[in-house]
Amino acid sequence: MGEVTSQQPQVRQERDLLGVRDIPAEVYWGIHTLRACENFPASSEPVGAHPDFVYALAAVKQAAAQANHELGVLDSSRRDAIVAACTEIRGGALHDQFIVPMVQGGAGTSTNMNANEVVTNRALELLERPRADYAVLSPTDHTNLSQSTNDAYPTALRVAVSAGCAQLRAALHQLGAACDAKAAEFATVLKVGRTQLQDAVPMTLGREFAAFGALVRADLELLVRAEHALYEINLGGTAIGTGLNAPSGYAPVVRAHLASIVDLPLRTAPDLIAATQDCGAFVQTSGALRQIAGRLSKICDDLRLLSSGPRAGFGEITLPAVQAGSSIMPGKVNPVVPEFVNQIAFQVAGADVTVAMAAQSGELQLNAFEPVIGHCLLTGLRQLRRAVDELARCVAGIGCDRDRLAAAVTDSIGIATALNTHLGYATATDVARAALRSGRGVAELVRERKLLSPAEIERALDPAILAQPR
Amino acid sequence: MGEVTSQQPQVRQERDLLGVRDIPAEVYWGIHTLRACENFPASSEPVGAHPDFVYALAAVKQAAAQANHELGVLDSSRRDAIVAACTEIRGGALHDQFIVPMVQGGAGTSTNMNANEVVTNRALELLERPRADYAVLSPTDHTNLSQSTNDAYPTALRVAVSAGCAQLRAALHQLGAACDAKAAEFATVLKVGRTQLQDAVPMTLGREFAAFGALVRADLELLVRAEHALYEINLGGTAIGTGLNAPSGYAPVVRAHLASIVDLPLRTAPDLIAATQDCGAFVQTSGALRQIAGRLSKICDDLRLLSSGPRAGFGEITLPAVQAGSSIMPGKVNPVVPEFVNQIAFQVAGADVTVAMAAQSGELQLNAFEPVIGHCLLTGLRQLRRAVDELARCVAGIGCDRDRLAAAVTDSIGIATALNTHLGYATATDVARAALRSGRGVAELVRERKLLSPAEIERALDPAILAQPR
Amino acid sequence: MGEVTSQQPQVRQERDLLGVRDIPAEVYWGIHTLRACENFPASSEPVGAHPDFVYALAAVKQAAAQANHELGVLDSSRRDAIVAACTEIRGGALHDQFIVPMVQGGAGTSTNMNANEVVTNRALELLERPRADYAVLSPTDHTNLSQSTNDAYPTALRVAVSAGCAQLRAALHQLGAACDAKAAEFATVLKVGRTQLQDAVPMTLGREFAAFGALVRADLELLVRAEHALYEINLGGTAIGTGLNAPSGYAPVVRAHLASIVDLPLRTAPDLIAATQDCGAFVQTSGALRQIAGRLSKICDDLRLLSSGPRAGFGEITLPAVQAGSSIMPGKVNPVVPEFVNQIAFQVAGADVTVAMAAQSGELQLNAFEPVIGHCLLTGLRQLRRAVDELARCVAGIGCDRDRLAAAVTDSIGIATALNTHLGYATATDVARAALRSGRGVAELVRERKLLSPAEIERALDPAILAQPR
Amino acid sequence: MGEVTSQQPQVRQERDLLGVRDIPAEVYWGIHTLRACENFPASSEPVGAHPDFVYALAAVKQAAAQANHELGVLDSSRRDAIVAACTEIRGGALHDQFIVPMVQGGAGTSTNMNANEVVTNRALELLERPRADYAVLSPTDHTNLSQSTNDAYPTALRVAVSAGCAQLRAALHQLGAACDAKAAEFATVLKVGRTQLQDAVPMTLGREFAAFGALVRADLELLVRAEHALYEINLGGTAIGTGLNAPSGYAPVVRAHLASIVDLPLRTAPDLIAATQDCGAFVQTSGALRQIAGRLSKICDDLRLLSSGPRAGFGEITLPAVQAGSSIMPGKVNPVVPEFVNQIAFQVAGADVTVAMAAQSGELQLNAFEPVIGHCLLTGLRQLRRAVDELARCVAGIGCDRDRLAAAVTDSIGIATALNTHLGYATATDVARAALRSGRGVAELVRERKLLSPAEIERALDPAILAQPR
Repeated sequence: MGEVTSQQPQVRQERDLLGVRDIPAEVYWGIHTLRACENFPASSEPVGAHPDFVYALAAVKQAAAQANHELGVLDSSRRDAIVAACTEIRGGALHDQFIVPMVQGGAGTSTNMNANEVVTNRALELLERPRADYAVLSPTDHTNLSQSTNDAYPTALRVAVSAGCAQLRAALHQLGAACDAKAAEFATVLKVGRTQLQDAVPMTLGREFAAFGALVRADLELLVRAEHALYEINLGGTAIGTGLNAPSGYAPVVRAHLASIVDLPLRTAPDLIAATQDCGAFVQTSGALRQIAGRLSKICDDLRLLSSGPRAGFGEITLPAVQAGSSIMPGKVNPVVPEFVNQIAFQVAGADVTVAMAAQSGELQLNAFEPVIGHCLLTGLRQLRRAVDELARCVAGIGCDRDRLAAAVTDSIGIATALNTHLGYATATDVARAALRSGRGVAELVRERKLLSPAEIERALDPAILAQPR
Repeated sequence: MGEVTSQQPQVRQERDLLGVRDIPAEVYWGIHTLRACENFPASSEPVGAHPDFVYALAAVKQAAAQANHELGVLDSSRRDAIVAACTEIRGGALHDQFIVPMVQGGAGTSTNMNANEVVTNRALELLERPRADYAVLSPTDHTNLSQSTNDAYPTALRVAVSAGCAQLRAALHQLGAACDAKAAEFATVLKVGRTQLQDAVPMTLGREFAAFGALVRADLELLVRAEHALYEINLGGTAIGTGLNAPSGYAPVVRAHLASIVDLPLRTAPDLIAATQDCGAFVQTSGALRQIAGRLSKICDDLRLLSSGPRAGFGEITLPAVQAGSSIMPGKVNPVVPEFVNQIAFQVAGADVTVAMAAQSGELQLNAFEPVIGHCLLTGLRQLRRAVDELARCVAGIGCDRDRLAAAVTDSIGIATALNTHLGYATATDVARAALRSGRGVAELVRERKLLSPAEIERALDPAILAQPR
Repeated sequence: MGEVTSQQPQVRQERDLLGVRDIPAEVYWGIHTLRACENFPASSEPVGAHPDFVYALAAVKQAAAQANHELGVLDSSRRDAIVAACTEIRGGALHDQFIVPMVQGGAGTSTNMNANEVVTNRALELLERPRADYAVLSPTDHTNLSQSTNDAYPTALRVAVSAGCAQLRAALHQLGAACDAKAAEFATVLKVGRTQLQDAVPMTLGREFAAFGALVRADLELLVRAEHALYEINLGGTAIGTGLNAPSGYAPVVRAHLASIVDLPLRTAPDLIAATQDCGAFVQTSGALRQIAGRLSKICDDLRLLSSGPRAGFGEITLPAVQAGSSIMPGKVNPVVPEFVNQIAFQVAGADVTVAMAAQSGELQLNAFEPVIGHCLLTGLRQLRRAVDELARCVAGIGCDRDRLAAAVTDSIGIATALNTHLGYATATDVARAALRSGRGVAELVRERKLLSPAEIERALDPAILAQPR
Repeated sequence: MGEVTSQQPQVRQERDLLGVRDIPAEVYWGIHTLRACENFPASSEPVGAHPDFVYALAAVKQAAAQANHELGVLDSSRRDAIVAACTEIRGGALHDQFIVPMVQGGAGTSTNMNANEVVTNRALELLERPRADYAVLSPTDHTNLSQSTNDAYPTALRVAVSAGCAQLRAALHQLGAACDAKAAEFATVLKVGRTQLQDAVPMTLGREFAAFGALVRADLELLVRAEHALYEINLGGTAIGTGLNAPSGYAPVVRAHLASIVDLPLRTAPDLIAATQDCGAFVQTSGALRQIAGRLSKICDDLRLLSSGPRAGFGEITLPAVQAGSSIMPGKVNPVVPEFVNQIAFQVAGADVTVAMAAQSGELQLNAFEPVIGHCLLTGLRQLRRAVDELARCVAGIGCDRDRLAAAVTDSIGIATALNTHLGYATATDVARAALRSGRGVAELVRERKLLSPAEIERALDPAILAQPR
């Protein structure tokens, strides 16, 4: 942390309520960040690994400075310096200075102070002042002015998580489009539909993929709703929601600045005390991710089943080969992409339990466990986005074995279902059981038993007709 | 199961694909129900324990009969008999005939057949025919006409679950009102707000209860959204969503009849193949219940904390005594109602994991595990409704210890926060630490150190002012 | 609750700290039970639905009376009456008097008082005294003497849960035996082993079932360890583990009596304060049940896969038909028993989350949430036992399609794995890929390419040899 | 990935079944690793982030080479090169070459091939051959000889996880010792014990910490049992457990070599087919971690409760201040270390759900989802170890407020419990309720009502005596 030369001082000193500590001279973070890194050994990624979150923290700091100036509690020089620093950070600068681990005690105070320190020291630099000249610009008295961790942190998290949701939606759109393309490609490929893994009635492979597309798109609304919930912020509530230390009228002003910076339709929560202690929007988002993950996992299970074989399985479709499948079995190709997505889904489902536990463990005016919630959501969003991208590529490369699919339909006992309306369920059952026992075809038996005329049989049992939606 | 007299035959015989079985002569259910009860030993309540579900099953059967008649595939005599039987069941009759356990293999086929058999045998009775005269009216060919378990069962479940959601919303409204009443009662009671269980800044007890009310109400929207999702049904899709065996145009007609019977704004799913395999609306509902339960649990934790004591705890509020608290400690009164609600919340959270697992385990064109999903949702809704009712009664009886609350505010170090804007964070920290070390008051130290004038101190540190929302 | 005649008083009165209530004259339970039933609306089964738990509660009361007498704090007349009442209850009497719901606030106090009241009133009857003559024999001063809910309740729960574990072990033994029988029956049936649902290398169907048997048996040790943990009781610790109000030397004496009554190698926990607040043994047991359930679910998934078809699936085995599979598809037989077991497994996994949440939510000297833990464990044990019984019957009826299995082995590309040691992985890969692309056999290609001699090929690629364990 | 100079070729080429790819010339990994990194975008740490796992993979490769040589299928020159390379890696070299992400599709094949490639290329270097001279030494034909991913990967994972368990045990021992030290320090500090957050009966603060120590130590046995289960390996089973391609007698020989290298009492599983598909030992380990985490979380909740305040809370103990608690509230110190541990516990509980889902989703002869299981376990072990270290430091710095604790005991109503044995529960209840209503002391009321003599009162109600264990 900071190379030393003989001329330059290698450290600076900073002070907090516990005493004085040496800080590497050139870093932008300060004593609160240092202590946090010592207290919370790196069991999770640093905040800087989530660019959306760093962006959102800087946006909150910038909006606060603008609102504080507008309401007369921050002079224009300090406002300008803070705004300039935040603008740089939002543009991608200094993310490597956000070094506190995502999972931390203290309800996010360390992340908030890391942001306060980095913004302040960069702003001091812009003011041509040395690092840590906090009498000129203070992390707590100026950069954090009119804020508490308890409103600044969850507000930034909401902004970051909603950004992640929007990106996931874009990825899901791509996946849906890949499914639709396969639906069109396989529109006339007849196959046996299955319920409970047992042969059921005819359908087309196209409709199977169309259904995947429909399922993927069904998730988008969940994300939109979660984003809507996330737009409700508690900025201005400060420590517990009473707004202590914020100037009068601060909440709407800072919200307007923030909404403008991040370009989101933010709302101020109607009850700031409730909003400060509540993690509902995060739980809702986590629930949406869990549901999306569950559907992706189900689709991947289906892809793995349909591509099972190549010979002793269903063998209906082929997945694109992306790597050798086995270190011992030559030529084996495995469904590694769906398996990867399955595992991401299991992780998201587990993280959802973590989020639920953390959310319901909050006490009184604050939930101290928001950091692990933020970690789970930002990580889960990133994982799902990448998994969805991979899956879209996989789907795009899927092929099918039309001959095998067609043979299975012709051979199927499930078409006996169509006999119900002609012969009744009991007689149709007799035919189906006879077909199973004898290994013969349903149509053949109906003909032999003279239950229907050949023309009727042809009409009644044509898979292409049976597969059509009514 | 059916008392025997010497004159009457005590059993009737029914046949399925496995053979012939004796059925008690007088019961309305038949051979499929009998086998299911044998196959799925009663590890869960019978379907009949959920009146909303029995109602919904009968509604589906009625709607199907009406639609089948309208589309010319069921004569009016059979239609009338089925409709009359269903109307009776919806009115509360014959619920004791729905004896198959909620949790069952077979994707709900046993429940659907139990319904088909009961409706059919009651309809036969209305037609003055003996039980099991299935040549006249058949459970499969007439009562189940144009249906499959795979559309009839989840449609009925959706109707039943949405009814349960509406009832839970009503209970939550009551709880919200009870919180609001306390908010008004305690509007002027000052207290110390707490973050991370540490004394923070002043607020009122009224606003604490107002926040509880706001949290309770925040859940209502989740339920409304879940209900909206549940209104999308797959009735008409039959076995796998292709609508095989249903007459042309059946789906919209049967949906209109069902919507009219149950008085819900039902929609037919745009992709019936997707809808038949998907459990998304159930997962979404489960997620909503989990979130509601989590918030209730958090409120109950707070009530238990605030009422801890009576002497060596927070001791801010008193819960109404509803039973002796201990078999050994005389006079002890425990927070048994919040503890009860906590435990229901843990059950709902666990059931949500069950639902998520079941939902993502579905394969291809059907999820075979809908029965356990239905069990979890209907049970969870009932549990939450009762828990919310209990909690509303408990909240209504809450009292507070105004003297103790007031003393704690006066004594609090947290009001040093208000010094930030006057003295800066660093000086305010010095004062706060000195107060803690010395056991003295913040105002006293500020006066002694002459940091502010007496008049300034009075204005700056008045808890009643600090507790006001900005 | 008690039929009324004109002559007899229909109610008696009892008093607690909240006042006086009418109790039906003839019931054995009293005022504490009444209030609990009102406070915890029946969202779960009554205690009486778990005979093992009622037995264990009576055993604890009996042991306490014997120990209290031995240590000189209870006279022999009262001791005898209590012992006689408990003996009857252990023998099956009065279980319908244990009416409080399993899930209740108050850490089990209501269950403990229900037991105290029933034992006391039956003992009073044996003493030829009227119900509620508590001056003669008191639920709190005599039947509960030297006990608190906080040691009596968890001790009884441990005894009951360990009994359930032993019963589950017996059921698993049966299932293991059923798997072994199939392993013997199918010992020579060659088949394609599969990894990642893709065809791999040859094995026998017998070894597949032998593995199922081994997995089932692997679970037994987990249960034995859980039972061992459950044998450590806190009886004698009373309210918080200090043993307040128990006579000197009470803990070992009462433990010896209880161990003798229930015939289990009970131990007294070395630190009774730790033992009173800890739910570790319950969490461990729940974890064992979750693991057992997960393995059963995996086996059921495999059975469903292997029996998929009958034509367009794996079609390797047939499950016994136990009911008609579909209300619309004639002749369809579904794997309803494995599906049932899957769902029980999902429930047990969900309940495990409930148990974990409840266990870690305990505070300070007691976990108030033991009732929901007890409910989850006793219910889960019962469900698993029944599911295992059903599954054992299902396994016993499994058949296989030897021809289909043999054809798949011969046809398999996976046997190319055996070429590695002769030709190296790279050349073997070329052969395998060529086989896949051309639809031809591996042996045929090796012969055509003259990579091995015909004799070598026969030796190297004989499935029967390859399937043998090395 | 490899700096380029003008003279040296910057890439080499490698081939797999999909074709030829360029690989940076100097890296030790090869084409299989490259494809895996492309297929599984870095959603998790690389394998190299877990030194125990890299060590274990190298140990498996080394043991296999030694066994292959011993059984005559690998010459001594290749054996020596592989052994030397593995020894270096076990010593800490080349960990940065293990770049495939932990979470990957393909059941660990990519990790196994990454290991095969790195070992092979380093061995080739030792043989003074260029990278990728696989005709001389092949990743599949030599380094992976007699192995499959399906036995090599889980065996290495078992070794790595058991090492992590042993390290966690050491950390827990330290935490237990810290609790014991506090137990000694606070041995005579009287305090009010609490059940259900309500004041109960007297105890000492020392015994409270002794109980924490006992709980921490109770977990050690769980880990020991999990490690015992992990020692059972399936090495030698190759692809599906039949041992195809391994020389006769290979399993015991390779196990002996591996046991010697890693110094663990490894056993070969009795049924290798069962062992290859089973994840039981991993689920058991995860369950143990979840249980440990739950207990740690409970202890942390207690520490946060007991240190709540400083004035308006329990205020019994003080945690060492490790950082400023708030960005807005001056002087505030928060329980950040317990909060950190709570969050780790929530993560471990969530990961346990992930593990359970992954374990029960395995199909037929293999569980394809072992990578996510390995990721959860190795990450969870590391997190818990660090959290336990932090917590031990926190406990060591705990102080207490003896005056406040003593006052609460004297003031307590809970001591009325001791009156039961003198006055009976009913009279004791009257006294307790009167004390609560009047705000007076229990002893005072007993004296006033002349229920006991002054000497009796002194003996009966002395907190120091009541707090003693019986």
